[in-house]
Amino acid sequence: MSTPIRFDIAAHDRRSRARAGVLTTPHGVVHTPALCPVATQATVKSLAPDELRDLGAELVLVNAYHLNLRPGADLVAKLGGLHSFMAWDGPLMTDSGGWQVFSLGFALEHGVGKIAGLFPDEGDTRVRARGQRPRLTRVDADGVTFTSHIDGSRHRFSPEISIGVQERLGADLILAFDECTSPLHDEGYTAEALTRTHRWAQRCLDARTRSDQALLGIVQGGAFEELRRESAAFIGGLPFDGFAVGGSLGRSKEDMRRVLDWTVPLFAEDRPRHLLGIGEPEDIFDAVERGIDTFDCVSPTRLARHGMLYTPDGRIAIRNAQFQQDFRPVDSDCLCYTCRHFSRAYLRHLFVAEELLGYRLATIHNLAFMLGLLERIRDSIRQGELAEMRRGFAARWGRAEVTIGGQTRDAP
Amino acid sequence: MSTPIRFDIAAHDRRSRARAGVLTTPHGVVHTPALCPVATQATVKSLAPDELRDLGAELVLVNAYHLNLRPGADLVAKLGGLHSFMAWDGPLMTDSGGWQVFSLGFALEHGVGKIAGLFPDEGDTRVRARGQRPRLTRVDADGVTFTSHIDGSRHRFSPEISIGVQERLGADLILAFDECTSPLHDEGYTAEALTRTHRWAQRCLDARTRSDQALLGIVQGGAFEELRRESAAFIGGLPFDGFAVGGSLGRSKEDMRRVLDWTVPLFAEDRPRHLLGIGEPEDIFDAVERGIDTFDCVSPTRLARHGMLYTPDGRIAIRNAQFQQDFRPVDSDCLCYTCRHFSRAYLRHLFVAEELLGYRLATIHNLAFMLGLLERIRDSIRQGELAEMRRGFAARWGRAEVTIGGQTRDAP
Repeated sequence: MSTPIRFDIAAHDRRSRARAGVLTTPHGVVHTPALCPVATQATVKSLAPDELRDLGAELVLVNAYHLNLRPGADLVAKLGGLHSFMAWDGPLMTDSGGWQVFSLGFALEHGVGKIAGLFPDEGDTRVRARGQRPRLTRVDADGVTFTSHIDGSRHRFSPEISIGVQERLGADLILAFDECTSPLHDEGYTAEALTRTHRWAQRCLDARTRSDQALLGIVQGGAFEELRRESAAFIGGLPFDGFAVGGSLGRSKEDMRRVLDWTVPLFAEDRPRHLLGIGEPEDIFDAVERGIDTFDCVSPTRLARHGMLYTPDGRIAIRNAQFQQDFRPVDSDCLCYTCRHFSRAYLRHLFVAEELLGYRLATIHNLAFMLGLLERIRDSIRQGELAEMRRGFAARWGRAEVTIGGQTRDAP
Repeated sequence: MSTPIRFDIAAHDRRSRARAGVLTTPHGVVHTPALCPVATQATVKSLAPDELRDLGAELVLVNAYHLNLRPGADLVAKLGGLHSFMAWDGPLMTDSGGWQVFSLGFALEHGVGKIAGLFPDEGDTRVRARGQRPRLTRVDADGVTFTSHIDGSRHRFSPEISIGVQERLGADLILAFDECTSPLHDEGYTAEALTRTHRWAQRCLDARTRSDQALLGIVQGGAFEELRRESAAFIGGLPFDGFAVGGSLGRSKEDMRRVLDWTVPLFAEDRPRHLLGIGEPEDIFDAVERGIDTFDCVSPTRLARHGMLYTPDGRIAIRNAQFQQDFRPVDSDCLCYTCRHFSRAYLRHLFVAEELLGYRLATIHNLAFMLGLLERIRDSIRQGELAEMRRGFAARWGRAEVTIGGQTRDAP
C-alpha cells in the first residue's frame, strides 16, 4: 500500500537531529515540528474548530478509545467520519486505544503516569506490578478486554478491532495498537509486552484497508535500553508510514531523553516521527533536538482549565491574589484573542467566579503560547539558530514560578 | 440633568401598543424591541464579547450586586469600568441590586421566583411572608442590610450606595434601587415596600452625579392593580430617563399581562421601557404588544446550559436519545455558527460527555434564536404585520415539546 502522506524535510539543524519539514496529509499540511492539541472526546475542551484554526493548529489528536465508547465509531462513521462530526476539516490523528486501556486500567488503579512511578521502592515494583493486576483490563496474546470507565460495560480491543475503529473514525494519521507498559513494570514483563506489541504491529499493517490513512507504528520497551533499541529496529523495519515513540518514558525527563537517543536514529529519515503524550516546553526542545516531528499533549489545555497560564517567564497561577489588580494581559507580547482583550485581573475574576469563559480564554492563550513556541522552533531550525533560540527561551523560563512558590507545582 | 440617551420611535403597531425604535446610548445604538443577554458576573456565560456582537446583541445587562461583591466596583472602576473590564464596548445596563437582594434573601429561603408562588394556600401567604422574615436580608427605611451569598460577609445597599456602585461600574443605563416584593407578600406589606421604593427613587435621582448614564425608574406594586397604577403614575412623573417594570409579576402569565396593562400606558411615550427578568418567546410577544422596548432574561442562556434548545417548533432536550443519530442542525433555517457547523448528534454527544463546548454552542444557538425572533418582531412592527407574524410563530411553537413529553418541562 503506497503511503497517503508526503513528508518533505526542508531543513536540518547542524548541531542536533532536529529537522523542519512539511507533512502533507489528505486533509492538508502540517508544518513540523508541530504540537497537536488533544481533542479527547472529539473536542479540544472549550474551543470551537474555528478558534483552533485561528490559533494556527494544523493537526488535532482524537482518542479512538473514548470515541468508540461514546458516541461509538459506527455512529461517527454514519455521520460522515470524525472530520465532519467535529467540524474540523484539517489533518486529524487518532490514537489506537493502547494508551487509554493502560491509563484507565493499570495506571488508574495504581496512580502512575507517563513518566514517574508512584512507588519509591524500585526493587519492589515487579511484585507490585505483577501482583496487582488491574481489575479493569486483562491482556492476552490476542488483545485486551476492558471495562468501560463510563458505564462498566465490557469491551474488547485487538489490533484488528482498533484499526477497524480508527478506519471508521477516518483520521488522516492512525496508530498501531500496542500494549503500553507502566514505569512499574520490570524488564521481564516489559519484554513480554513488547513481544505482543511487535506481533500486533504486523497485524495492524495486515488489517488496514483504507489507502487514505497513514498508519504509524509505535515503539515500546519502557526505559530499558535493549528493549527500546530492539523495538525501534523491529518497528522501524516494518512498512509503516511513520513512527511513534510511546509508553512509559521512565522515571525522569532524563529517561525520556535517553529513550529518544536509543530509538529515533533507527527510524528511516524520510518518515515522520511522533512522540506520544509529551508537551511541556522543556520536553519539546529535548525531543525536537532528538529528531521528533510531532507531539500531542493535554498539558497546555489541561493546565489552562486549572488556571495555570504560560508566560515567557514560566507558568503563573492566575487565581493568585497578586493578579487581582493586574491590568496587564497575561503576556504583553502575545497576540492571542485573550491577551489582546483581557487583563489578568479579569481572567482572575472569571476563574474565582468559576465562569466558563475563563477556561476558554486560558485555553486559547496556552495554545497560542505553545503553538507560537513551535513556530519559533521551526523558524530557528530553518535559520540554523535552534540552540541560540533555546538558550534565549530558557534564560527567562521559570522565573515567574519562583515568585508564586508551590502553586505552580501543585497544578495537576 | 439632561438625558444622555436618545430614543427615536420609528414605527407604532396599529393594533397594539408595540413600537419599534432606536435607543442611542453613549456606547452605541440599540434597536428596539430588544432582548439583552445577561452577563451576571461580567460575562454572558461561556461567550466571548465578539460572539455576542456577531450574534447581533446590542445591549448586555450586568448585575451590580454580583460585581460589587466580586471583584468589587472599586476594582472595576480602577480597571477603567465595566466596558473595559469585560471588553464589551457596546451599550451596557446594570441592575441596581434590588432584585438580587430579594432573590438571594427572601426568595432563596422561600423558594419563590418572579411569577409563581410556591405555597398553594393563598390565604396563608401573609402569615408566612411576614412571619418568616429572611435571615440573609433586613430592610429598613434607609436601605437593606444583607449577607453575601459568597462568603457570608455583611453588606449594605441603599439608594445612594447602589447609584455609587453603578456609577463606578459605568454602564450606559442604570436602574433605581428598589425593594422587590415577593408574590407571597400581601397588599399591606407590598404597599409599605412601595412607599420605600418611591422614596428611594427620588433619592436615586438626587444621588446621581454622572451625566453620561441614563437612570431608569422601577415600578413596583406586586400584582395589585391600585398599587401598580399608583407606582406607574408616581415613578412616571419623576424625571427618569426611562422606566422599568420590576418585581413580582403575580402568580401567572395572565398577571404579568395585567401588570403591563395597568402600568405602561402611564409612562411618557418618548422614553424607553424595560421589563425586568422576562424573556420566553410568548412573554416577549405579550410584553411588546403592551409597549415594552427592552427585556433582560437569563432563560435563553440558562436553558442552553441545561441542553434545552430553541427551535421554531419549541424547545428540545438535546440529551434525549432521539437525537443520537440526528444528522440535522438544531434548526435548519438558523444561520448561527452552531447550526452551520454541527449536527444535533454532535451536540448531544457534547452534552452527554459534559464537554464545555456543548454549553457554548447551545448558548450561541439559543441567543441567535431569540435575537433573531426580536429582529423579526422589529421588522413586523415596521411593516404593520406583528399580529400575523405572532400567529405564524405560535402555529409552530410548542409542537416539538409534545414529542418529548415531560423532558422539556423538567428543565430548570
